[in-house]
Amino acid sequence: MKIIIIGGVAGGMSAATRLRRLDETAEIVVFERGPYVSFANCGLPYYVGGVIEDRNSLLLQTPDSLSARFRLDVRVNQEVVRIDRAAKTVQVTDVLDGTTATEGYDVLILAAGATAGQALPGHGIPVRSLRTVDDVDAITSVLDSVGIGARAVVVGAGFIGLEAIENLVTRGVAVTLVQRGPRPLSPLDPEMAGAVLDTLLLHGVDVRVNSTVADVRDGRVHLDDGSVIETDLIVEARGVRPDTDLARSAGLTIGATGGITVDEYQRTNDPSIYAVGDAVEKTDAIDAAATLVTMAGLANRHGRTAADAIAGVADPSVPALGTAIVGLFGLTIAMVGWSETRLAASGRPHRVVHTHPSSHAGYYPGAEQMSMKLLIDSQTDAILGAQIVGGAGVDKRIDVIATAMAGGLTASQLSRLELAYAPQFGSAKDAVNMAGYVADNLATGATRSIQWHELDDATTSGATLVDVRSADEFARGAIPGAINLPLDDIRARIAELPDTPLVVHCQVGQRGHTAARLLTQLGRHVRNLDGGYRTWLAGTA
Amino acid sequence: MKIIIIGGVAGGMSAATRLRRLDETAEIVVFERGPYVSFANCGLPYYVGGVIEDRNSLLLQTPDSLSARFRLDVRVNQEVVRIDRAAKTVQVTDVLDGTTATEGYDVLILAAGATAGQALPGHGIPVRSLRTVDDVDAITSVLDSVGIGARAVVVGAGFIGLEAIENLVTRGVAVTLVQRGPRPLSPLDPEMAGAVLDTLLLHGVDVRVNSTVADVRDGRVHLDDGSVIETDLIVEARGVRPDTDLARSAGLTIGATGGITVDEYQRTNDPSIYAVGDAVEKTDAIDAAATLVTMAGLANRHGRTAADAIAGVADPSVPALGTAIVGLFGLTIAMVGWSETRLAASGRPHRVVHTHPSSHAGYYPGAEQMSMKLLIDSQTDAILGAQIVGGAGVDKRIDVIATAMAGGLTASQLSRLELAYAPQFGSAKDAVNMAGYVADNLATGATRSIQWHELDDATTSGATLVDVRSADEFARGAIPGAINLPLDDIRARIAELPDTPLVVHCQVGQRGHTAARLLTQLGRHVRNLDGGYRTWLAGTA
Ligand SMILES: Cc1cc2nc3c(=O)[nH]c(=O)nc-3n(C[C@H](O)[C@H](O)[C@H](O)COP(=O)(O)OP(=O)(O)OC[C@H]3O[C@@H](n4cnc5c(N)ncnc54)[C@H](O)[C@@H]3O)c2cc1C
Ligand SMILES: Cc1cc2nc3c(=O)[nH]c(=O)nc-3n(C[C@H](O)[C@H](O)[C@H](O)COP(=O)(O)OP(=O)(O)OC[C@H]3O[C@@H](n4cnc5c(N)ncnc54)[C@H](O)[C@@H]3O)c2cc1C
Ligand SMILES: CC(C)(COP(=O)(O)OP(=O)(O)OC[C@H]1O[C@@H](n2cnc3c(N)ncnc32)[C@H](O)[C@@H]1OP(=O)(O)O)[C@@H](O)C(=O)NCCC(=O)NCCS
Ligand SMILES: CC(C)(COP(=O)(O)OP(=O)(O)OC[C@H]1O[C@@H](n2cnc3c(N)ncnc32)[C@H](O)[C@@H]1OP(=O)(O)O)[C@@H](O)C(=O)NCCC(=O)NCCS
Repeated sequence: MKIIIIGGVAGGMSAATRLRRLDETAEIVVFERGPYVSFANCGLPYYVGGVIEDRNSLLLQTPDSLSARFRLDVRVNQEVVRIDRAAKTVQVTDVLDGTTATEGYDVLILAAGATAGQALPGHGIPVRSLRTVDDVDAITSVLDSVGIGARAVVVGAGFIGLEAIENLVTRGVAVTLVQRGPRPLSPLDPEMAGAVLDTLLLHGVDVRVNSTVADVRDGRVHLDDGSVIETDLIVEARGVRPDTDLARSAGLTIGATGGITVDEYQRTNDPSIYAVGDAVEKTDAIDAAATLVTMAGLANRHGRTAADAIAGVADPSVPALGTAIVGLFGLTIAMVGWSETRLAASGRPHRVVHTHPSSHAGYYPGAEQMSMKLLIDSQTDAILGAQIVGGAGVDKRIDVIATAMAGGLTASQLSRLELAYAPQFGSAKDAVNMAGYVADNLATGATRSIQWHELDDATTSGATLVDVRSADEFARGAIPGAINLPLDDIRARIAELPDTPLVVHCQVGQRGHTAARLLTQLGRHVRNLDGGYRTWLAGTA
Repeated sequence: MKIIIIGGVAGGMSAATRLRRLDETAEIVVFERGPYVSFANCGLPYYVGGVIEDRNSLLLQTPDSLSARFRLDVRVNQEVVRIDRAAKTVQVTDVLDGTTATEGYDVLILAAGATAGQALPGHGIPVRSLRTVDDVDAITSVLDSVGIGARAVVVGAGFIGLEAIENLVTRGVAVTLVQRGPRPLSPLDPEMAGAVLDTLLLHGVDVRVNSTVADVRDGRVHLDDGSVIETDLIVEARGVRPDTDLARSAGLTIGATGGITVDEYQRTNDPSIYAVGDAVEKTDAIDAAATLVTMAGLANRHGRTAADAIAGVADPSVPALGTAIVGLFGLTIAMVGWSETRLAASGRPHRVVHTHPSSHAGYYPGAEQMSMKLLIDSQTDAILGAQIVGGAGVDKRIDVIATAMAGGLTASQLSRLELAYAPQFGSAKDAVNMAGYVADNLATGATRSIQWHELDDATTSGATLVDVRSADEFARGAIPGAINLPLDDIRARIAELPDTPLVVHCQVGQRGHTAARLLTQLGRHVRNLDGGYRTWLAGTA
């Protein structure tokens, strides 16, 4: 059997190595149009920043090492330009000398990844995306030649845009961020994104939101609002789309998302052709619809799945949660599943929980506060998504929630997880447990909550907003219109509360919950402002 | 309704606060024999070490604060000495003045915790366990009065013993550990415990294994091997047992484990009496038998469960996994479920996986290696337990595995978890995914493995041990009797291998797996030494 693999990095090479482990006799040829295979895409930004010092450490394997260990026939600088499905051949162009050859296959695996699309015309200013070793070589060489005082414009503030910014700043480059939308990292809900913007500003990034590049001329970047930016370099990180040119021209089915359609064994509509990685559609774990998730873990995993299927081992893919994380100057932003914005747009009934827990027990030094948001199916209590922003321990909590989602645990069941607790690692009621408790109180109706963006409507309709924090906290800053009645005084001073529906709130939601329970039992109609003053402040900032 | 709670810390006070949130009218009285309630037991060792500087930060609540917020009637220095179930009363002694009173209840909650049992007679040397604020006050006052050069003997190297040692050393105290068993932290399997011992030795602890204290006389500690230790203080950490004296004398059912028997609503055999925390039996998640798990998370959780049940809300407890973690001079040791030792003793068929993964991508600086062990049901592929020892990221991986166990994921399914990956946080195939891949290969039979303790038998029965590492690695240290045939040379040099069954091994198991797959396909009978040279070395050290 002869297998040809197009694309020699995450998905493609994972398929190749696994296939060899399953089938010593197969002929396996990998075509890669770039000069390198098996490189650490995800490390590229950190090489720009000098955090990863040794360029060689980005190159996890070479054609030689893959030949020696896995008897793979890896051909770099070879671009597959055409697939002939009837003849079961591919046409390959040598990108160095332009020569062309034809190669036959029994089975083909497409792992062409994603593409940044057409670059902005730079008119003299170097323009680069950040996707290949060539890109970082070019970026570092421009910056080296400019030397001290180098300036860069980063277009787009998704995951890779943010990593680019962090590393350019680390390298001493003055960075301007040009961002089409109203805030960086658009998959985050607005009240969770504030810390991202603050962090960028704190690190001296010139942030231009609601802006696009209108033109690059006279050695300057012109934005659509008329402003002009002098720069030595433009880094494009406007997002990517599946690289499907080959698949499309070969008549393979492309889904509405723009990715190649595959079944759970990563097989396309041509039974001899498999496809994996950024180029293909995944099935969304939340709504079972086709979706795009361009993540290394899935590319590796699905490469192995395709190899298994080809070798006759059935190990079907499961729907994708889209867990993702990014570091930004010590701030960690992580998410899984759907955002509130997306749930609201889809009309899916959902509940929201905001908490602001500590990374570990408050009485042990060094605890860092994070902001956590949980999205919950209001009919089934299923976990639909989570977002966490903070410092230490954010990665742990998102992984626990992603695992709970994979295991089908409900939001309330998070409260029962037995998470490892010693004071330097967590809390007796860990952050994830606590979110589960809050979810449980919503599920049982013990406490009703209200979101920061629903507050105005509630007060307009006559609800009284009661701030149950201490008088000191109230004095330091409060929500306009709130009256202050500290939690511990409620029993004594309840008569002071007007006879309207009440919205109670504290700093993070916890005292508000106790206040809500008390007032409910005292016969009042109460809702607790979810996430408290902190979430309200973040949402309305 | 009048509820009396005996014990005012983790389980008891969690029940009290929740009960108040559910029932504003109930009369809730908490009796605590010590002078403090709601203190951070788990922080006590770190106060000894000065890591927690402010003693007040250990006292999370006071009777006053609990009265103000929750209208709880909290009575400290009040020991309940008798329960009269027929009369529904308790008899209470004031530990300061010895006076006694009787108090009636409708519902009683027992949350008396665990006890260290009878203290060693010190004959002039102060002897303390480490369970209360009083204990740490006494310990720090002895150490302060001795000043520089203070010495301590710690008896027992369980979780609290290790924490005591770390903190005494941090404080500058010369520590001798006296440990009955052959190694510290007995719940760890032997090959996982080596790092614990090494860490103790590295920090200057005088470790006496297989020793017990025979006698304390003439101001010296005499061990059973005849050796004599001069010390200023003895800290006892020989383990605890449920504090059930009251329950027992009241005729409540006590299980074979020594803990109070309760149902899933934390109710004892007396429908008016609930019990929670260290004093009660839990149901083991692995075999559904009664077991003891003395952990703060469960005490808090079950306190809430009891309160719910009393208030008429059904929120049954689930079986316990026993997730636990301890830090020791930067080494982190974590576990969940059962050990291999326990599985073997119970005769339960199981598979074992050892890996030595990185805390994050190897190409990004600062990755730390950990050792991970997964215990798997060989019939169902269910995860039965895990042990992880290392530095950064150990806590995250044990929590992910504990969550997977709670969600009923199989070991192979760990490979599919979508864990948050950016290079500073994890790997595209994260440590937990990788253990899942290895488990999958065992489940499907793709690679058969052999454990470090089975190696001698295999070679004695005629198997050849083949070390597939490089010649350099082989030269730096190898398993006696192994022949060296580097992985990349196997295809060319297979004829050199004798015609016997083979056991292959590399450093950690990964190259061994590829070698095993290759040799299997070349017609050989092969097993891969699980965890490679590292695990073998740790097991046979
Ligand atoms: C800068 C950067 C940072 C990232 N950080 C993260 C992260 O932190 N976490 C995460 O999960 N993911 C991250 N990703 C995404 C991750 O790298 C991708 O999801 C993953 O590499 C996709 O694997 P793939 O095999 O589909 O594509 P790729 O790994 O991109 O490989 C596709 C290969 O196919 C080759 N190719 C395409 N067409 C042809 C052709 N016609 N002929 C021959 N060769 C062809 C391309 O040259 C390319 O090398 C990052 C990506 C980048 C670029
Ligand atoms: C030093 C130390 C470190 C620990 N570290 C951790 C850790 O890192 N992680 C973890 O999960 N767990 C840890 N634990 C265990 C954890 O603290 C317990 O599991 C938890 O406190 C048990 O809760 P409980 O309510 O059952 O008992 P406790 O919290 O011990 O409370 C029981 C209370 O009942 C009182 N009492 C007993 N009898 C009577 C009576 N007759 N009348 C009145 N009062 C009575 C006692 O004085 C005591 O204050 C640690 C424990 C200690 C001592
Ligand atoms: C590295 C690469 C070539 C794949 O090689 P690979 O040998 O399949 O993968 P790994 O080196 O991760 O090893 C995984 C294999 O070792 C096995 N293994 C790992 N640790 C083991 C252990 N301790 N014992 C036994 N087996 C082990 C796994 O089971 C797996 O084998 P399987 O697929 O047959 O189950 C490919 O993933 C690649 O090119 N990656 C770089 C690009 C990339 O991923 N970019 C995105 C992230 S930056
Ligand atoms: C602290 C203690 C008194 C319990 O008090 P508590 O008010 O029940 O518990 P917490 O302060 O943890 O708060 C939890 C409550 O706040 C709610 N909550 C937490 N964060 C919230 C938020 N952001 N929004 C809304 N509600 C929130 C939870 O749902 C829970 O309420 P519920 O039980 O009604 O569901 C008790 O656990 C104790 O004495 N602990 C110290 C001893 C100990 O635990 N030792 C071992 C570890 S060192």
